[in-house]
Amino acid sequence: MSGTGSAPRAGILVTGTEVLTGIIFDRNGPWLSERLREVGVDAAMIQIVGDRPADLLATLEFMRDEGMALIITSGGLGPTADDLTAEIVGQFCGREMVLDEPLEERIAEILRPLMTRWPDLDPDSVRESNRKQAVIPEGATVLEPVGTAPGLVVSPRDGEGPTVVVLPGPPRELQPMWETARRTEAFAAAIAGAVPYRREIVRLFGIPESEIANTLRAAEAAGLDLEPLEITTCLRRGEIEVSTQFSPAAQGAYDAFLDFIRERHADTLYSEDGLTVDDQLAELLTGHTLAAAESCTAGLFAARLTDRAGSSAYFLGGGVVYSNEAKVDLAGVDPELIERCGAVSTEVAEALAEGIAERFGAELGVGITGIAGPGGGTPEKPVGLVCFSVWMRADEDPARPGRRLTRRSVLPGGRSDIRDRSVTVAMHMLRRLLLGESDEQPAPAAGATPAS
Amino acid sequence: MSGTGSAPRAGILVTGTEVLTGIIFDRNGPWLSERLREVGVDAAMIQIVGDRPADLLATLEFMRDEGMALIITSGGLGPTADDLTAEIVGQFCGREMVLDEPLEERIAEILRPLMTRWPDLDPDSVRESNRKQAVIPEGATVLEPVGTAPGLVVSPRDGEGPTVVVLPGPPRELQPMWETARRTEAFAAAIAGAVPYRREIVRLFGIPESEIANTLRAAEAAGLDLEPLEITTCLRRGEIEVSTQFSPAAQGAYDAFLDFIRERHADTLYSEDGLTVDDQLAELLTGHTLAAAESCTAGLFAARLTDRAGSSAYFLGGGVVYSNEAKVDLAGVDPELIERCGAVSTEVAEALAEGIAERFGAELGVGITGIAGPGGGTPEKPVGLVCFSVWMRADEDPARPGRRLTRRSVLPGGRSDIRDRSVTVAMHMLRRLLLGESDEQPAPAAGATPAS
Repeated sequence: MSGTGSAPRAGILVTGTEVLTGIIFDRNGPWLSERLREVGVDAAMIQIVGDRPADLLATLEFMRDEGMALIITSGGLGPTADDLTAEIVGQFCGREMVLDEPLEERIAEILRPLMTRWPDLDPDSVRESNRKQAVIPEGATVLEPVGTAPGLVVSPRDGEGPTVVVLPGPPRELQPMWETARRTEAFAAAIAGAVPYRREIVRLFGIPESEIANTLRAAEAAGLDLEPLEITTCLRRGEIEVSTQFSPAAQGAYDAFLDFIRERHADTLYSEDGLTVDDQLAELLTGHTLAAAESCTAGLFAARLTDRAGSSAYFLGGGVVYSNEAKVDLAGVDPELIERCGAVSTEVAEALAEGIAERFGAELGVGITGIAGPGGGTPEKPVGLVCFSVWMRADEDPARPGRRLTRRSVLPGGRSDIRDRSVTVAMHMLRRLLLGESDEQPAPAAGATPAS
Repeated sequence: MSGTGSAPRAGILVTGTEVLTGIIFDRNGPWLSERLREVGVDAAMIQIVGDRPADLLATLEFMRDEGMALIITSGGLGPTADDLTAEIVGQFCGREMVLDEPLEERIAEILRPLMTRWPDLDPDSVRESNRKQAVIPEGATVLEPVGTAPGLVVSPRDGEGPTVVVLPGPPRELQPMWETARRTEAFAAAIAGAVPYRREIVRLFGIPESEIANTLRAAEAAGLDLEPLEITTCLRRGEIEVSTQFSPAAQGAYDAFLDFIRERHADTLYSEDGLTVDDQLAELLTGHTLAAAESCTAGLFAARLTDRAGSSAYFLGGGVVYSNEAKVDLAGVDPELIERCGAVSTEVAEALAEGIAERFGAELGVGITGIAGPGGGTPEKPVGLVCFSVWMRADEDPARPGRRLTRRSVLPGGRSDIRDRSVTVAMHMLRRLLLGESDEQPAPAAGATPAS
């Protein structure tokens, strides 16, 4: 299952002592790796080195010796003296460093609002530290700054060796500048002949990762040709993601593989087009209104749902009901119910879901209550026990109770794993409720309250 | 500012296609980098390569050529055929691969419970695929498995070149096995003479990163000796972190540098001991109670505060008050105030802070309201405008209004940057309120309400 043998190879060079020493996590290497594969380039290595000229240069040379057609660098373009990527790349490509005066002026323009915001800054020193950013290898293609640092595409002066794409470190600058870089002539020349790979992602929720390993074995045993497919499975936030890369010629092999998954995992396969449960929920919630009462997740569910622009159209708000008093006061949970069943119980989860919906006048309510640990567990209610309920008001008949799904799970991992996975579980329950599923519901007897 | 020139150098080699392709994030590289520095070893590079024998071997050779005394590998020790780190390392160190029979038996012992749990597994195939894990380079030091894969410390057969520490990929196996590895004789021999480095971190809030660059230049201009200090600055969530590594001999140089920062940045330096604002708040909030009303951050503040175990002692809960109705209903904001000043206004932020505290019976309240974008901005109230208020009830005299801090900022970046930075701003305001700061407050006139 390799599949990328004939593609041009690229190396990713991430610079910065703060990345090397673990002060900040590198997000650029993996992101660039994915983007390279999309354009048919095999990202063969990611290397992280500190801000040391000799290490930077040696790594560039190593990548050249290993036959990389392309090198992408991230970081080291800032105004301080330890930011020296541009200079080292110039040296590597055999090009002189020259001041690009129009570029210097454009950077000065970008910095002007900063000067207004912090009037105490010394204009000369700002100007000087940013002149450095306009000194570039002669003949390089400039990528206009998204922050203050320009990027570069630098091909070797003598035509031998890899082309280097130089990008800034902050992801929100790097990502749009990558899009610009890959449209340059120098980039296209470096990867001439690359065939863009296809990448398909399917997602499953509710099975262990080992089940997918079994499925792969079973597919081969059933005679499917997986050889031209590069299949990677991973467990993320409690979901299984199966990502497959393949050349256009292997589309048939992929289709057969997808059919095989569909058949074996009909009940847990929820996305065949790469859309996440977040994407699907945003769609499903359109035209509805929702509120959430969260105890152990303490706002994470609301935060994840509203990470998406436009979510205010369906998300009215929620309560972080950490204390029992808050459960009673904000979500209208009966204190006697908490007393009888405990704050972490399916009964209280149901009362939270329904109560918060009532409180906000929302059509849908979500209730989450659990023990995220590390303390607070008991033999009956261990750390990781989380109770969930999602509730939807009945449309027509006010006497009919709403539809709901209620679950109780013991989730693995540490405090933040448990909180994070709880949000995922709640999102899937909400998805299923919106698709029409619900728990069996006895007809309401006189005197019974929906929450009990 | 290199400073670590005389320490033994180490390379970290992270293997695995799923890491290289961005399917999972590498946490081992940064973690190992920090551990190496603690024992006086300079982690000079982290390299991520896929499961390809030629790339693995070339990278080991590159690290040897670059003068690494030590190489730590992570991953590639599993039972499947694409896990080949041990074999490549054996080849690199000039050692034959041999079956360690007692080790094979110990691995079989570990697997027995697994067989019970999944009775469908074929015992022969399990046994066979795990025999592979007991085939090790001759003369290597075995690190007992934490999962099923043993680790290794392998020194070069001819005594020339780096010693290689081979660790499994899963962090919960790698981390304890690192502790075992660093206590082995082979490890000690490889890094003989290393002097553990010191690492100090200071944090500043409220200045741009370029200001710190200026401070470094000014320190050098003032004659401070920064040469023995490895100083790294980074901008994270709107804060500046200055991390410095140095040998014990350079303590004096560090102390002088710290004094220099203290003097220049008295008002923005908030941590000299590496503690984060989260750490400080957890301490400061002890004995108090808090509630939060969040609009644009929609639960992120509550989620961050409760990320810490034990936070339920001071955090009572909060409201995600996305809609205006929720601001009125949950936090008791006067609808007329929203009408007059707009939902994003310092007045509404104040009303939210005070109202949510009242609602929860908390001593402290936090109110956050803003425009996270990308839509919803106007010339007067652009995307990124966020209004904050933190409020503390007056202890003794109920007629006296509480103390508060209220701010209005325009934060840069995209939707998630704005949300994330807003949380940081609110945490700092809360910290300062708890340390005794507050805005000037006019004496309450008859009929004036604190929120207006």
